[in-house]
Amino acid sequence: VYTINDHNICCIVNSDVVYNITNRLHSCLFDGNTKNIYIIGTGLIGTSLIKRIHNISITDYTFNIIATINTRTMEHEDYGTHTSDLNRFIEFVLTDTYNNKIVVDCTSSNLILNYYDKLLLNNIGIVTPNKKGNTQSYQSFLRYTSYISYKYETTVCAGLPIISTLKNLLLSGDEILSIEGVLSGTLGYIFTQYNNTDKPFIDIVKQAEQLGYTEPNPLDDLNGVDVMRKILILARICGISMELDDVANELFLPPNCINSKTKAEFYSSLHECKPEKKAGFDIHYVASFKQNKASVGIQYVNKAHPLSGLKGNDNMVIITTKLYFKNPIVIQGPGAGAEVTSAGVLSDIIQLTF
Amino acid sequence: VYTINDHNICCIVNSDVVYNITNRLHSCLFDGNTKNIYIIGTGLIGTSLIKRIHNISITDYTFNIIATINTRTMEHEDYGTHTSDLNRFIEFVLTDTYNNKIVVDCTSSNLILNYYDKLLLNNIGIVTPNKKGNTQSYQSFLRYTSYISYKYETTVCAGLPIISTLKNLLLSGDEILSIEGVLSGTLGYIFTQYNNTDKPFIDIVKQAEQLGYTEPNPLDDLNGVDVMRKILILARICGISMELDDVANELFLPPNCINSKTKAEFYSSLHECKPEKKAGFDIHYVASFKQNKASVGIQYVNKAHPLSGLKGNDNMVIITTKLYFKNPIVIQGPGAGAEVTSAGVLSDIIQLTF
Repeated sequence: VYTINDHNICCIVNSDVVYNITNRLHSCLFDGNTKNIYIIGTGLIGTSLIKRIHNISITDYTFNIIATINTRTMEHEDYGTHTSDLNRFIEFVLTDTYNNKIVVDCTSSNLILNYYDKLLLNNIGIVTPNKKGNTQSYQSFLRYTSYISYKYETTVCAGLPIISTLKNLLLSGDEILSIEGVLSGTLGYIFTQYNNTDKPFIDIVKQAEQLGYTEPNPLDDLNGVDVMRKILILARICGISMELDDVANELFLPPNCINSKTKAEFYSSLHECKPEKKAGFDIHYVASFKQNKASVGIQYVNKAHPLSGLKGNDNMVIITTKLYFKNPIVIQGPGAGAEVTSAGVLSDIIQLTF
Repeated sequence: VYTINDHNICCIVNSDVVYNITNRLHSCLFDGNTKNIYIIGTGLIGTSLIKRIHNISITDYTFNIIATINTRTMEHEDYGTHTSDLNRFIEFVLTDTYNNKIVVDCTSSNLILNYYDKLLLNNIGIVTPNKKGNTQSYQSFLRYTSYISYKYETTVCAGLPIISTLKNLLLSGDEILSIEGVLSGTLGYIFTQYNNTDKPFIDIVKQAEQLGYTEPNPLDDLNGVDVMRKILILARICGISMELDDVANELFLPPNCINSKTKAEFYSSLHECKPEKKAGFDIHYVASFKQNKASVGIQYVNKAHPLSGLKGNDNMVIITTKLYFKNPIVIQGPGAGAEVTSAGVLSDIIQLTF
């Protein structure tokens, strides 16, 4: 209910949203360009983000890092340093009187997800590269993404413009026919090396580990679960109600590798892993979404296929739509790493509105 | 000057912006998702846009096409059909009492540019695939782009996410080291054909014309001016004060072609045009921006270069930055055509805020 004339705008709202609306209006009129940031997780990405925020020279925005927390301690601009206590940290976020509060979840943990709903409901923004939030139940994905103040571009291929491109295509009324690509820099690197050398598969995996391209235990890359999460997110953005279990994962590792409990056990069985090569084709670990089905696994692509142009530890995403049908949109580049991820996170922080 | 408590937000503004602010506040509180659209130009892109808007099934937004104008007639939802009169059309736009008014400049003409400032100043949005606006003086580029309600993603490579990606990189504090690419689908097609066949250059140009890939007179593609405009826009987005004349254009056409006045004259000299091929290299018409300098012209790229993967009439843009240094971001796909352009325009309309 509202009336409007040249002198007044009057709007009647339910009393329970008065605080929220007043805050929003205040942001909108006065200091929409101040961002008050709470960082959860100060590992590689969190640390890189803090450095990036301190060094940024954009004068249009003011960035205040109000508080940070890791598994050991938490620091708050106003309340000093304390032993880590996530509940108390979230209480700070909820009750601090700053405007435009944004929580950045730089963990890869499930722990923070318990607070997402409460934060978003209280008009606190969330920016996250953490894939876990988007890959719980489809219902929670729908809930989170119903808030414009929830930004998650970096959950797929870090700073590469995959999610925004997909969303823009959908917004404009285009229809996504298929998404395929190499969504893991680690697996991209391993298979590119495997295609172009005669080295045994196990040697290439060890080399990738030595170069710092893998998780602490490379099994966590090679089992494909991370890639499943990424293609699941893209499928869900396309409006498909799908759970992680619905993503088909054709394993190429020997069972002993998959079931290994330690890195030593993993490597002791990996020498049996010899993915078959085919003349005239490259072998790649491809995620694909097509006809409402998602899958991850080894695929053979001919030399004319965009994926055969993959280099180093690049990611590549190929989006075929009703409009981009004969020739798809292809986006390629580094899709992991603390620096490019934190840059993407900062870009999300800047674009976040309430 | 403002005061705020739990019950009131009071803000004192200059009387000359009261109308503008009241409008903005109204959009912000009540119907930010209604878009009232005025379309200038009903050629291929304009017509495709109108069809797209009529067919769109997004329920979050309401799109009203209030009026359209072409060189012959104009139609207004409330005032009916009239002989085309651009001044009067703009008066409609300025005085109509709708909120969230957006003018879409689907022409390739200079005529509309005279009104850009007045429209933007009056809080009317502009969405445009028309490169002319962004390639006048650097000062006018700065003026237009200082408004968030000016959207121009489709001025470079149509619906491909080039401008948004560049802006996001810059926002996040990254530094652009170079941009290079094939920014013309026409020239991409012509040189890909030239690389992969033994046909004379002139035959390939004629073939491209027959396929509808060229301007009415192919000289308008081959003189590189359109590509100059595109790389100029990208350079300006990077913050470089540069004019169209500052873009180096190394012509590869014989002087008689360049100076030809008609298509017949153009073709009669084109048979002299035989760009030299080099073994092991592909030849492409490349736009590049590097070390604050922009240029367009023929370049030889080796088979490992991303551009050698170019297909059909695709565009390709390669962005190398401080963060994406070893491996650049590569975006490839169709970068022209009424359908993908109008989809990009619609995406801009949806994202436009005041």
